[in-house]
Amino acid sequence: MSVTAAKGFTAAGIAAGIKESGDPDLALVVNHGPRLAAAGVFTSNRVKAAPVIWSEQVVKGGQVSAVILNSGGANACTGPLGFQDTHKTAEKTAEALGEEFSPGEVAVCSTGLIGIRLPMDQLLPGIDTAVAQLSAHGGEKAALAIKTTDSVHKTAVVESPAGWTVGGMAKGAGMLAPGLATMLVVLTTDADVAQPELDKALRAATRTTFDRIDSDGCMSTNDTVLLLASGASQVAPGYEEFAEAVRAVCDDLARQLIGDAEGASKDIRIEVVNAASEDDAVEVGRSIARNNLLKCALHGEDPNWGRVLSAIGTTSAVFEPDRLNVAINGVWVCKNGSVGEDRELVDMRYREIRITADLAAGHESAVIWTNDLTAEYVHENSAYSS
Amino acid sequence: MSVTAAKGFTAAGIAAGIKESGDPDLALVVNHGPRLAAAGVFTSNRVKAAPVIWSEQVVKGGQVSAVILNSGGANACTGPLGFQDTHKTAEKTAEALGEEFSPGEVAVCSTGLIGIRLPMDQLLPGIDTAVAQLSAHGGEKAALAIKTTDSVHKTAVVESPAGWTVGGMAKGAGMLAPGLATMLVVLTTDADVAQPELDKALRAATRTTFDRIDSDGCMSTNDTVLLLASGASQVAPGYEEFAEAVRAVCDDLARQLIGDAEGASKDIRIEVVNAASEDDAVEVGRSIARNNLLKCALHGEDPNWGRVLSAIGTTSAVFEPDRLNVAINGVWVCKNGSVGEDRELVDMRYREIRITADLAAGHESAVIWTNDLTAEYVHENSAYSS
Repeated sequence: MSVTAAKGFTAAGIAAGIKESGDPDLALVVNHGPRLAAAGVFTSNRVKAAPVIWSEQVVKGGQVSAVILNSGGANACTGPLGFQDTHKTAEKTAEALGEEFSPGEVAVCSTGLIGIRLPMDQLLPGIDTAVAQLSAHGGEKAALAIKTTDSVHKTAVVESPAGWTVGGMAKGAGMLAPGLATMLVVLTTDADVAQPELDKALRAATRTTFDRIDSDGCMSTNDTVLLLASGASQVAPGYEEFAEAVRAVCDDLARQLIGDAEGASKDIRIEVVNAASEDDAVEVGRSIARNNLLKCALHGEDPNWGRVLSAIGTTSAVFEPDRLNVAINGVWVCKNGSVGEDRELVDMRYREIRITADLAAGHESAVIWTNDLTAEYVHENSAYSS
Repeated sequence: MSVTAAKGFTAAGIAAGIKESGDPDLALVVNHGPRLAAAGVFTSNRVKAAPVIWSEQVVKGGQVSAVILNSGGANACTGPLGFQDTHKTAEKTAEALGEEFSPGEVAVCSTGLIGIRLPMDQLLPGIDTAVAQLSAHGGEKAALAIKTTDSVHKTAVVESPAGWTVGGMAKGAGMLAPGLATMLVVLTTDADVAQPELDKALRAATRTTFDRIDSDGCMSTNDTVLLLASGASQVAPGYEEFAEAVRAVCDDLARQLIGDAEGASKDIRIEVVNAASEDDAVEVGRSIARNNLLKCALHGEDPNWGRVLSAIGTTSAVFEPDRLNVAINGVWVCKNGSVGEDRELVDMRYREIRITADLAAGHESAVIWTNDLTAEYVHENSAYSS
């Protein structure tokens, strides 16, 4: 059901001819209100694509009436002319939607290759087609049109018994910072929520979901997460209840992103426990998640805990080397910084691998998700462009 | 000529049976003086192998009479018993060498798998064999015995017309911090240099050589660089002249390490120019060197400058995105943060690839070397252990 699960939204997904393959490449999501509240979280990469610079400004206004998204081109590192293309895309979208729409309330998202101008001759007429196909059942098609190297489209929905819904779609295989391929996420809700609460709920949700998946340590120039509220359910939920629904949808989509990461054969859940602070836990988790040697070992189903310790050793977290413990799939292969239980006991046949790193330094914890490093990842990313 | 190019040193390399393959796995380098001055630089990983902890203490004393090195086991994360093994190795070496040798002046280096105890029943008798085979021509054999996944052994020598020499051997494919496989380097000189100058020259040399190669962003628990001076040439060179010779040998060995990195098909030289500070230049160079997506693209001979910009964007260096310029093999494919010269002009057929990143923010620069990311790297590191 995707972005049209919540009342007050229509969507469309079409093939505008941006992709040479002829696959769907243009998606449109429209908020018909009565509310037009919106929040957004964007890449922390300092090299930002034109649509990110544009959409950050749009979201600052607090109201978003439509999101136009294209795959087939990132419109990043395209200079002032690339920014003009984004501007024209928003203008054309508002114009095609009708009088009550203003370009300043149209967010724009792009994904694909960096450093190439968008084919505006295809994109602009495509907007008319997308508007003509807008439907309260268009969520799936929109989710399909934003795919790039994704093997499947990703959607998630949480319905509250109180009569409101949070739904969303995602593309990519990465995270806000950093992320493998660009991650684009559009969430919609018909809950009646004011902009400040929307913003607070979105930031809280992304901090522990999209921000804690780290497929390959690379940060995109285009990552964007938008949350639009129509208020069409006429139900105003309590903040905690609403924030939990947003978090659940984000968590679901984040897991789908990791599950579809380019070339991956394993989903790796790294839980850092007994850290002195949450920041320490996250730093250690990320360091483990970014260790290429470990990621190769896990691909080979080798419970190489030495590479986990080696990764922990590069951090500034509070710990003593001879108090570290590491479990892989429940087997404590490293105890007190040295050999623990028999590594032959670790069963690594399944796609999900669970690593627990016990810092023995406090009571905080964090979970980071990553993938293994495979020959397929290399192949996909050495043959993707050019 | 390796570690025995300089007068006053003998060396040996033998097969002690530590490696199941029967390949050479034990090397010994002995300084016969008259000086026993020594300096050392060690991994900055906080999880340090037992031989690193031991050798740091030995080097602090300022005198090193012998270095015993084994491949086939890293003796890292082996707890107090592993440290006892290192201690015993130093004691046995001093004992086998004779009365004038003290264990406290014997440095120990180990490389191989983490988390496994060394087979002392093989190692200790091997020391007697190594001592028996010590020779003023043993440098090559020593260099062969410290190999792990190295495809070739690495040695370098600089001879001064003034009658003194700096020589050395290295194994591994990485750097001090971080490094792919463990890097072990032993340098010897017969120049008559006091310990403080030796230390200064070694730190200056490693800072711009081994510390600026970054094959895969992983930091070993065992990295060690030792410089031993015998004074046997009876020539005391000026500091600058001596430091430059040490730097040249380190630079040569560092390039050999990159050239032999596991599974690599490209050697990538990243020069960051016009940075506001040298720290900025190094930070940006490392960020580019560690970008898996870029490393895959370069493997595929794709001049994907967008991934270079995306890597620069994750740093805290001083720069404006719309003033960045990037050249690949001399072609300025990115100008002012946007499309530059035709990427089709970039010839990437050869093993060496040169990336120049112009931050347009100052006058400082730095060079970082790395490798591409290949399916062979994944294969080698997923099948290496277990």
